[in-house]
Amino acid sequence: MTAAELPFRHVAVIGLGLLGGSVARAVRESLPGVVVTGHDADPAVRDRARAIGLADRIGDSAAAAVAGADLVVLCVPVGAMGDAARAMAPGLAPGVVISDVGSSKAGVAAALAEALPGRSVIPAHPVAGTEQSGPDAGFASLFRNRWCILTPPADADPRDLARLVALWEAFGARVETMDAEHHDLVLAVTSHLPHLIAYCIVGTASDLERVTQSEVIKFSAGGFRDFTRIAASDPTMWRDVFLSNRDAVLAMLGRFNRDLAALETAIRDSDGPELFDHFTRTRAIRRSIIEMGQDDARPDFGRSDHAGATEAP
Amino acid sequence: MTAAELPFRHVAVIGLGLLGGSVARAVRESLPGVVVTGHDADPAVRDRARAIGLADRIGDSAAAAVAGADLVVLCVPVGAMGDAARAMAPGLAPGVVISDVGSSKAGVAAALAEALPGRSVIPAHPVAGTEQSGPDAGFASLFRNRWCILTPPADADPRDLARLVALWEAFGARVETMDAEHHDLVLAVTSHLPHLIAYCIVGTASDLERVTQSEVIKFSAGGFRDFTRIAASDPTMWRDVFLSNRDAVLAMLGRFNRDLAALETAIRDSDGPELFDHFTRTRAIRRSIIEMGQDDARPDFGRSDHAGATEAP
Repeated sequence: MTAAELPFRHVAVIGLGLLGGSVARAVRESLPGVVVTGHDADPAVRDRARAIGLADRIGDSAAAAVAGADLVVLCVPVGAMGDAARAMAPGLAPGVVISDVGSSKAGVAAALAEALPGRSVIPAHPVAGTEQSGPDAGFASLFRNRWCILTPPADADPRDLARLVALWEAFGARVETMDAEHHDLVLAVTSHLPHLIAYCIVGTASDLERVTQSEVIKFSAGGFRDFTRIAASDPTMWRDVFLSNRDAVLAMLGRFNRDLAALETAIRDSDGPELFDHFTRTRAIRRSIIEMGQDDARPDFGRSDHAGATEAP
Repeated sequence: MTAAELPFRHVAVIGLGLLGGSVARAVRESLPGVVVTGHDADPAVRDRARAIGLADRIGDSAAAAVAGADLVVLCVPVGAMGDAARAMAPGLAPGVVISDVGSSKAGVAAALAEALPGRSVIPAHPVAGTEQSGPDAGFASLFRNRWCILTPPADADPRDLARLVALWEAFGARVETMDAEHHDLVLAVTSHLPHLIAYCIVGTASDLERVTQSEVIKFSAGGFRDFTRIAASDPTMWRDVFLSNRDAVLAMLGRFNRDLAALETAIRDSDGPELFDHFTRTRAIRRSIIEMGQDDARPDFGRSDHAGATEAP
């Protein structure tokens, strides 16, 4: 990509955790020549980001970090978007594009529109992550082969939208566009409800009287460990997701509760055919996810090959 | 291990799916010199097992397969244990030890005791598996670094128990002993309830009107895909697990439902502190699982490194 083709010349990243750190690294790896600046509200995170050279410059204020940027990507928990936007507003250059990486979109779009009137705001959500957090957790390839959903408002500037698409494609992501409300419904089922259920069952398992926590941990390879990964995700981020996407999450949870009650009845009634039918239907979805490159078909994702490497010495 | 030290001379495996195939392979890899014979009720599976050389001999009947064996390992769904035991009974040698790999234990112990009166029966459950099934799915290292729970009856022969422990340790497993009822309670929370919930949410997601199945698949990397792995497990096996461990599963499900209702209330009431507290507690369990070598701490279990390899061409 020549300098003239770069979608942006200077990207500012606000919030330097897993996502912000990954955006900063992805810009440097995939768009050499683009200036990267950053800021985090936590001074310890700013120090660490400077120590590991996460950006060309880490500003002590959000306004200082965004000065001169033609793209700002807000990578803070969705409940902190409005405050972060207000803090940086005095430093914004004319013509700057504002985006984010939040996991819910209607609430973020409203908060940013209110905090930054007249600005070009195009919210985004890269559907990628790990259970790690902090400035050291990110990596440039986090978005590769993952989907990034853009939710441009109806009056978004098509040129700015095209530049943002080019940025995410440069990171290796596949881009899809939809409205914020539909995004929130889709993600309620593919991400928010799974996290809620994972957090719930891990809590249930740690509160039992007749089964010890040590037993739960020892025998977690029977299925439980698959839930613990996502239940180890950042608590602030997820608190905000559930508060901001409350209605869609509650709607999906209602469906889930109804379906779980039906399975409970089938077990109580020893209804083998009903259980078998249900358990057969779900295999096709797994196959499609692997065919789409959204998961790894190796047994245990290669966990058994590597178990030795993760053991305590 | 010299021939005199081998815990068994001839192991017969009844049921040649993921677990049976892995037991056969593990015997050959870790105990060279031990004869392995096998049988599966499905003629197509027997043919395939012969074609890939899974055992020294595949018998056309269970009774033929167990002739001369000093250990028989039943690797059939837990609901089929009684029938499988009766089918092989005429071929059993004097002094043979009978074990299994079923995921619930009290029901299996009762079925085997009834079908094989006077025999040395020591049920077992290796807590290991993948979502794959069939004779090609197994691998010798499946049990390495995993726990195998033995549930010997009160009157079990201590020498037979010691031999079975030696077998599983030769496979690389760590062995724990407990009574069948406690096993079923522990596994209800670490394995059976997670599977039930995973099957449920994958079903819920595939039945929505306003979110398409294609969207669920595309955006599954947000958390949903972690559930689809275990929801792709063998339907017959899991039907039988829920039917045979009904009471413990229903008890754990009752706990889970109560906890989920509390989280639902917190979301409905926009109770941020309650959500944050709950989401913080669950991180410690994840850390312990990784420290115990029961999971892989690499981001995405290395999924992101390998996503390209699993894509359709």
